[in-house]
Amino acid sequence: MFSKTTVKYIQSLQHKKFRDLEGVFVAEGPKLVNELLEEEIFSCKAIYALEDWVHGLEKNLLKKTEGRLEIIKDFELEKISGLSKSNHVLAVFEKKIINTQPSISGKFTLVLDDIQDPGNLGTIIRIADWFGIENVICSLHTADMYNPKVVQSTMASLQRVNLIYTDVLQWLQQQPGIKKYAATLNGKDLKSFSTIKEGVIIMGNESKGISEAVMQMADEKITIPRIGNAESLNAAVATGIILYELCQ
Amino acid sequence: MFSKTTVKYIQSLQHKKFRDLEGVFVAEGPKLVNELLEEEIFSCKAIYALEDWVHGLEKNLLKKTEGRLEIIKDFELEKISGLSKSNHVLAVFEKKIINTQPSISGKFTLVLDDIQDPGNLGTIIRIADWFGIENVICSLHTADMYNPKVVQSTMASLQRVNLIYTDVLQWLQQQPGIKKYAATLNGKDLKSFSTIKEGVIIMGNESKGISEAVMQMADEKITIPRIGNAESLNAAVATGIILYELCQ
Repeated sequence: MFSKTTVKYIQSLQHKKFRDLEGVFVAEGPKLVNELLEEEIFSCKAIYALEDWVHGLEKNLLKKTEGRLEIIKDFELEKISGLSKSNHVLAVFEKKIINTQPSISGKFTLVLDDIQDPGNLGTIIRIADWFGIENVICSLHTADMYNPKVVQSTMASLQRVNLIYTDVLQWLQQQPGIKKYAATLNGKDLKSFSTIKEGVIIMGNESKGISEAVMQMADEKITIPRIGNAESLNAAVATGIILYELCQ
Repeated sequence: MFSKTTVKYIQSLQHKKFRDLEGVFVAEGPKLVNELLEEEIFSCKAIYALEDWVHGLEKNLLKKTEGRLEIIKDFELEKISGLSKSNHVLAVFEKKIINTQPSISGKFTLVLDDIQDPGNLGTIIRIADWFGIENVICSLHTADMYNPKVVQSTMASLQRVNLIYTDVLQWLQQQPGIKKYAATLNGKDLKSFSTIKEGVIIMGNESKGISEAVMQMADEKITIPRIGNAESLNAAVATGIILYELCQ
């Protein structure tokens, strides 16, 4: 039933504390919700949608909404939406269970040392998905992958990329045989590297870069060549350029 | 004087209509404001700052604030700030005069066909600055370069890159001798291109891509190779990767 309790419950999921307690997160908009329903990597708990969304659904998707769908009015959706303008449908999904100790040999792995902007994290997850990266190791101060802004900006890539939140320094120490590349402003020119099949790429915080202790773990420091005058590149853009150059 | 009129005036500058009428825009935060004051590419009209910002200024910058500075209280800055959390200083600058028909021979030029997200536009301006691009030709539906979100996310690159708003189709037709590259999802692999010294790179709208008529003008269609499954890359990330590969 679309009650005050439901409204409060969904609003509470804007906060990490409640998402963690409940083990769920919110996704909004037809494109994202339909894709998550289709793939079934996240189990769907509830859907609140305008009538027009339901009418536009294909049969197989409509079947997947059974027992979970509540049709609501525009003003009701506005109340629970975290978007600046609500977008036809909001769904609550269960978080997925992630293997926290994946094998990374023969693969590319991304390490994020305190990426704090949710928009950047979402964009980086999409980049990881584009370049076929399965695992992203995130420091404990990296933005939450289930933050609504992250979820919305990943464009469903969230279901294909695993984010593992851990002490990245310790994690790096446990990967002795794998070459580690750190993105910095004073390393070797990225263009001097060849493509590789296996490795760990470390990206740092938006303003502070990679922490000193983590930087110590790097085998190679890489820098994107600068032609002009900007002080730095956006963290997601830098990640995209580095993966483009190194990933085979 | 920090009056109600001032508050209303500055709040009105959140809107393009009033920025256009007044020929000014707003920048916030010590890092950005200090850099814009330092470089003097934009003429400063007024500064509203907390006392601590003024005390932290170096002499040469302090001199540049003369006759324009008003020290205000925290709660007053909150009222005029467009940021979710105000940041010590807000300044009003005059827009710069831009040569709307720059020579582009021997240079790289970026064309944006309806980039609509201000954050993306700001990030693209920063990328252009990083890769030494002087001129960015923007379609008339591209976000406004003086939108506060654009200004904040350019990190002062705004002063080094010229944005020219025009009919891009017509503009492209007026550049017969220059090779035009269009970013698309079904072109030639970007890795098959060599670096170049001169050219126009066309980037399209976040969801619709490049419009058909503009696409007709392209000599080459380029695509960033995809290894994984993401449907697309963020427009700013794609711009960064393409400029990295092509700019010499």
